[in-house]
Amino acid sequence: MAERGAARSRRTTIRDVAEHLGLSVSTVSSSLNGGGTLKESTRERVRQAAAELGYRPSRTALAFRLGRTGTIAYSLPTADDGSVPMLDVEAYMIGARAAANAAFEAGYALTLTPPTIRGEEGWNLIGADGVVLCDPVQGDERLASLERLGVPVVTIERDSSRPDWPYVVTGDYERNTRTLLDHLHERGARRIALLAPDASWSSAEDTIRAYREWATEHGAEEIVRLIPPARINHDAYVDALELLGSDPRPDALVASAEQYRPGVLRACRDLGIGIPDQLLIAIGGDSQAAEHGDPPITAIDFQPALQSELAVQMLLRRIEGDAVEGPIVSESMLRVRASSGRGQTPGA
Amino acid sequence: MAERGAARSRRTTIRDVAEHLGLSVSTVSSSLNGGGTLKESTRERVRQAAAELGYRPSRTALAFRLGRTGTIAYSLPTADDGSVPMLDVEAYMIGARAAANAAFEAGYALTLTPPTIRGEEGWNLIGADGVVLCDPVQGDERLASLERLGVPVVTIERDSSRPDWPYVVTGDYERNTRTLLDHLHERGARRIALLAPDASWSSAEDTIRAYREWATEHGAEEIVRLIPPARINHDAYVDALELLGSDPRPDALVASAEQYRPGVLRACRDLGIGIPDQLLIAIGGDSQAAEHGDPPITAIDFQPALQSELAVQMLLRRIEGDAVEGPIVSESMLRVRASSGRGQTPGA
Repeated sequence: MAERGAARSRRTTIRDVAEHLGLSVSTVSSSLNGGGTLKESTRERVRQAAAELGYRPSRTALAFRLGRTGTIAYSLPTADDGSVPMLDVEAYMIGARAAANAAFEAGYALTLTPPTIRGEEGWNLIGADGVVLCDPVQGDERLASLERLGVPVVTIERDSSRPDWPYVVTGDYERNTRTLLDHLHERGARRIALLAPDASWSSAEDTIRAYREWATEHGAEEIVRLIPPARINHDAYVDALELLGSDPRPDALVASAEQYRPGVLRACRDLGIGIPDQLLIAIGGDSQAAEHGDPPITAIDFQPALQSELAVQMLLRRIEGDAVEGPIVSESMLRVRASSGRGQTPGA
Repeated sequence: MAERGAARSRRTTIRDVAEHLGLSVSTVSSSLNGGGTLKESTRERVRQAAAELGYRPSRTALAFRLGRTGTIAYSLPTADDGSVPMLDVEAYMIGARAAANAAFEAGYALTLTPPTIRGEEGWNLIGADGVVLCDPVQGDERLASLERLGVPVVTIERDSSRPDWPYVVTGDYERNTRTLLDHLHERGARRIALLAPDASWSSAEDTIRAYREWATEHGAEEIVRLIPPARINHDAYVDALELLGSDPRPDALVASAEQYRPGVLRACRDLGIGIPDQLLIAIGGDSQAAEHGDPPITAIDFQPALQSELAVQMLLRRIEGDAVEGPIVSESMLRVRASSGRGQTPGA
């Protein structure tokens, strides 16, 4: 460790270059940073001396000159208490991985931000050249802070207070919800319940609106259970229990998030409800566990890797000042499995 | 949200504190930053007023004072061509997720660095307060650069040119290799082959050394196939084909990395080798696919989440200047599955 200290103290500074040349620090700084009104021969002399002496610009100087740090941030959604480890949700982990790979391809690092990040100081410390913001809430504080700082942002799903925001990749949850409802209806369900978070995420809002519209169009009863904020990222066991314990019982359930799957399945076990014989189940969001579990669960795969890749690519264009066309609607896929019945769906 | 915005626009500056106290800005600054030759009573007065007025230091002030950005970096291994997306290896993804969660818990962001990162400038731009370096090669350039910069590093596995490096979390690949060999031997294997990368990763070196020592101790033939650098992160199909096509054929195979699993299985199919009837298989590194595939594959689970969590905790202690005890040997688990035979292993 002593060696390290010594090595560090020998680092060449801009002052060393100035002393070596008999020039002022500000002249050397201007020469290296492109400012001022110096002769090109002076600049060249400074550059050569800096190279010979092994001067490397500090992070601050580089960032100042280019306005870049070579990092982009990937900001996961937070629940109201800010404590939920969203990376434990498989889709976000897959999204983060795809974002990192897309960033790496462009030579950028990817910073995963802590859920506690707040305000402009927090973002300044991260020092990202741009931010991919996952699932903003309505009037998202992070988005507002970043705009005040002039940091380019691309969101995955919308801040619903900004209907015209173009820098967004969306899985189109209205369409996805209709796809799930149509599928369950084709499989014979007539009392389809919805389990969704009581949150201002646009995906939740779009899901609930689409469900209500679809119910009206089909003359179906609306059976909606909104999960209160305090339980928003729990496994939804309590909520599923109440919803499925009602009389008459729903004959199908759409759980709007993959993380509700374990609680829904546990509630079915505890109530003695057979899947798919007594209840069809479909979830908004896919996972390995949904695919390989018992029973396998029908799901909307909103392709989180594709979404994150598209978001990073859009963000890099914003950072580079290139033209950006948005919003982008990314494709989602219906994965039909045993939980929605054993029949064949036409066209599925 | 409007409230929050309003609060933000009233942000307290160092100037507000100065005006409130009737002191100069530089006096307030010195008081808060520890410079200058002020009386302790003045410093205390300033600190109290700053706290009462809700003053929070800016990024620049914080970074300047503490030399901190509130980010730690997680640096994945690179192959020789630097192009391999290591996050696609499940264990690294799980490790990165655990590292992020451990960083978040301490209020830090986690930066995943691109495989192209080189030299001090690159690390300066990232601006991390410390780095977790996964699987350094011998004489790792990243480790050397970071030491020159004085940035604290913790490695997962060793740089084998630094046998006394204390800041390391290791899965103990010598012990793991012996565990796999003993298990296969107990299951009746007498010609156990090894497939390992020809790389200077300490995990590979330890694996190969332990294999050779074990073979000597058991009077067994050494059947080793080293995967050349150009194919080091491919699926090992070509290498498995050659190894398993030899005569006499091995009766068991240890593939030292999880990413070799698909190629090994394909080679077995193409050669018509039944698992486990004609060949027992075990791999160093676990995955969902190893667990749920057909057949399920016996594996060493070196618990990448635990390793990364321990590494981040050690790194945070280094950053804070706390005492660090290393190296840490993290526990690995043998996961016995169908690929190593259907018998019961005593004590497994």
